[in-house]
Amino acid sequence: MTHETLDTAAGHLPAEALEAIERAATAAHRHETLFSERAANIKQSAVRDVFDISLRPGLVSLAGGSPYLQSLPLDRLGQTAAAIIAEEGLTALQYGGGQGTEELRTQICEVMAAEGILDADPANVVITAGSQSAQDVATKVFCNPGDVILVEDPTYVGALNTFEAYQVQVEPVPMDGDGIVPELLEAKIATLQAEGKAIKFLYTIPSFNNPSGITLSAERRQRTVDICREANILILEDNPYGLLRFDGEPLTPLRAGNPDDVIYMGSFSKIFAPGLRIGWALVPAHLQRRYYLAAEAVTLCPPTLNQMLVSAYLRDYDWRDQIVTYRGLYKERCDAMLAALAEFMPEGLSWTNPEGGFFIWVTLPEGVDSYPLLRTAIDAGVIFIPGAAFSPSDEPSNKLRLAFSAVPPESIREGVRRLAPVLREAIAAL
Amino acid sequence: MTHETLDTAAGHLPAEALEAIERAATAAHRHETLFSERAANIKQSAVRDVFDISLRPGLVSLAGGSPYLQSLPLDRLGQTAAAIIAEEGLTALQYGGGQGTEELRTQICEVMAAEGILDADPANVVITAGSQSAQDVATKVFCNPGDVILVEDPTYVGALNTFEAYQVQVEPVPMDGDGIVPELLEAKIATLQAEGKAIKFLYTIPSFNNPSGITLSAERRQRTVDICREANILILEDNPYGLLRFDGEPLTPLRAGNPDDVIYMGSFSKIFAPGLRIGWALVPAHLQRRYYLAAEAVTLCPPTLNQMLVSAYLRDYDWRDQIVTYRGLYKERCDAMLAALAEFMPEGLSWTNPEGGFFIWVTLPEGVDSYPLLRTAIDAGVIFIPGAAFSPSDEPSNKLRLAFSAVPPESIREGVRRLAPVLREAIAAL
Repeated sequence: MTHETLDTAAGHLPAEALEAIERAATAAHRHETLFSERAANIKQSAVRDVFDISLRPGLVSLAGGSPYLQSLPLDRLGQTAAAIIAEEGLTALQYGGGQGTEELRTQICEVMAAEGILDADPANVVITAGSQSAQDVATKVFCNPGDVILVEDPTYVGALNTFEAYQVQVEPVPMDGDGIVPELLEAKIATLQAEGKAIKFLYTIPSFNNPSGITLSAERRQRTVDICREANILILEDNPYGLLRFDGEPLTPLRAGNPDDVIYMGSFSKIFAPGLRIGWALVPAHLQRRYYLAAEAVTLCPPTLNQMLVSAYLRDYDWRDQIVTYRGLYKERCDAMLAALAEFMPEGLSWTNPEGGFFIWVTLPEGVDSYPLLRTAIDAGVIFIPGAAFSPSDEPSNKLRLAFSAVPPESIREGVRRLAPVLREAIAAL
Repeated sequence: MTHETLDTAAGHLPAEALEAIERAATAAHRHETLFSERAANIKQSAVRDVFDISLRPGLVSLAGGSPYLQSLPLDRLGQTAAAIIAEEGLTALQYGGGQGTEELRTQICEVMAAEGILDADPANVVITAGSQSAQDVATKVFCNPGDVILVEDPTYVGALNTFEAYQVQVEPVPMDGDGIVPELLEAKIATLQAEGKAIKFLYTIPSFNNPSGITLSAERRQRTVDICREANILILEDNPYGLLRFDGEPLTPLRAGNPDDVIYMGSFSKIFAPGLRIGWALVPAHLQRRYYLAAEAVTLCPPTLNQMLVSAYLRDYDWRDQIVTYRGLYKERCDAMLAALAEFMPEGLSWTNPEGGFFIWVTLPEGVDSYPLLRTAIDAGVIFIPGAAFSPSDEPSNKLRLAFSAVPPESIREGVRRLAPVLREAIAAL
């Protein structure tokens, strides 16, 4: 609050309230020096920024990557939760082990086996408060300020926020339609190491990358691991969407054949329920202890009730069949979005054609900055995430992310229809 | 694994398994250089260390500060959870806002009002994954490596672990029977600031300190805040037990009259259910934004289902009456422990007489190290936490913490009866 507004307000306030305001202003000034250096690096996520806006009635949100929960058996899940609390409440509502329950860690190994990781040991699984927390812990354990994390360009905004909170230098590696380009990855590593930089991770979302929907091709996966191993760089593999491939089998994760070089992160947020905040890391055996202790220092233990509810779901429900349902559902929505884009979008745009996941990445002509278009789009009744959010640089971006996961096909079509004139106008103004 | 054990194992293993072991050993060696500097500071908590042991049948655990959940209406809570999931599952199982639900933040202000904080604004409440996470976020936002946090001596081991993970210099301030001694606090601050140290927080558990059970007297509370304000040090007030005062009204928190100088942390772990992992921070308005963004970067959002269950509990149940029940229950247990200590303990010991909370702090004669006694005690069928866990130094400690919260009076008596000869023997061996 500036002194001017303070003075203006003063006329309407009793002396006591005025004193309180002055005291707070003084404290704010005094405490400014107390922030850590990293605090300045902690930014608002653009996705979270529009979270409240996206709830406005009448608006079509193509912004948030929320899963579509309507197809879950809510009544039955309620009964399951009731039984857990009534019959095992003394466990479910009590503190638990810091690594998570053995039952759920064992079941998580089955979930990973469905993707092609066949040798996971429950002892090396650490359950976390969503996979966001698994990223936070990994950065905490491995990154000093100034260390480098390589990321796909574009990459998940939540990961960028986590990394930057540790004052890490985030370096983007270009992708083409098949994901990270190995030669460019090698070149990037060579340049950075020649500068004396300590590169700790390659952070990758290999299947249906958020935000681009791009998939790292099967051919490039082992090559990527080999390049990193050669340079002594760990891989942080984030795979929340892996099982949500529309057609065919899930692609084999980078972790599968490389147990010593990959910290693999999974989540129940996309295949079951994000509101439970249950994710996990599968950590190489030789890194497990330090990873686990750091996780424990952050939250003591993951919520017991939530773990037991996920366990019951994996044990008593046909979770594989639910995934088949989701795959069909998201494929239908993706197709609806692709069709709407083809129908409504002006000349000069291109977009990705994802094999799975939640997102399509739209490229506008060079010179169009998608960020200011968000305001116009909200006025037109539709919301998206501007591309700049998904890059560590502060440069304007001519990209934008559209999520097809959370809204039914007819709303997707309506949302794209509303967006089209906003983009057309921006292109015309070039 | 040393080369010797590797060679010994080799004779019994197929070549493929041996290769895998060698590969892992090589990776372990290569990756040793990748850990962050702070990783070396992240240690196992002694409390968590004995968590598994404490579950052994037949053992009396006076170790963990688990609340006694048997008095909760589990059947009814199960029905409440069922209704939330069946009727509001699309919200309860979905992502939520990063700060927590407005309903619960408003209710949390009522809970704090029951303790004497009358001016809390829901806008300044940030809901976290237990108050452990609230500590982690506070340290992240304010502490650079080498900064100082002042703590009571002794203090909560979980907080020590969190602080040390940020490479903070933790400096203990002596307590007497009335808590932190103001003159010694002033002297400590003067010494450290004269050395050029940046002191960021005083971390205090003013009511029924964990592990000592000591309470900062009403007379000293404002003095403590004034000393810190004068030195531009924030107070991190951790008050999970405040409402569990056996007799009389809860003591007024330091935050009550000092909205600009105190980050107040509360928790439902002791007054409701730790397995839900719902805690909170009430942050001065001028610090709210940076605190909130850092919380969001760690976990995106607290679990929605858990927040809604706590909200329903605060709305539809007589939570105040449940606290009255808890106060009576823990008072009875504390009395049982005090009586058993008087009955069984050898000469030369002293212990605190807490006004509330979960813990009694026992002092053995000088020269007795309580740590090695844990092993003997386990053999005798009882378990406690050695005093060294609650201090930032690595010095041996002649103290130990006994928790009376989780076991019924007859087991408390039996546990103390089993512990007595272990301590008697240690004293005799001096």
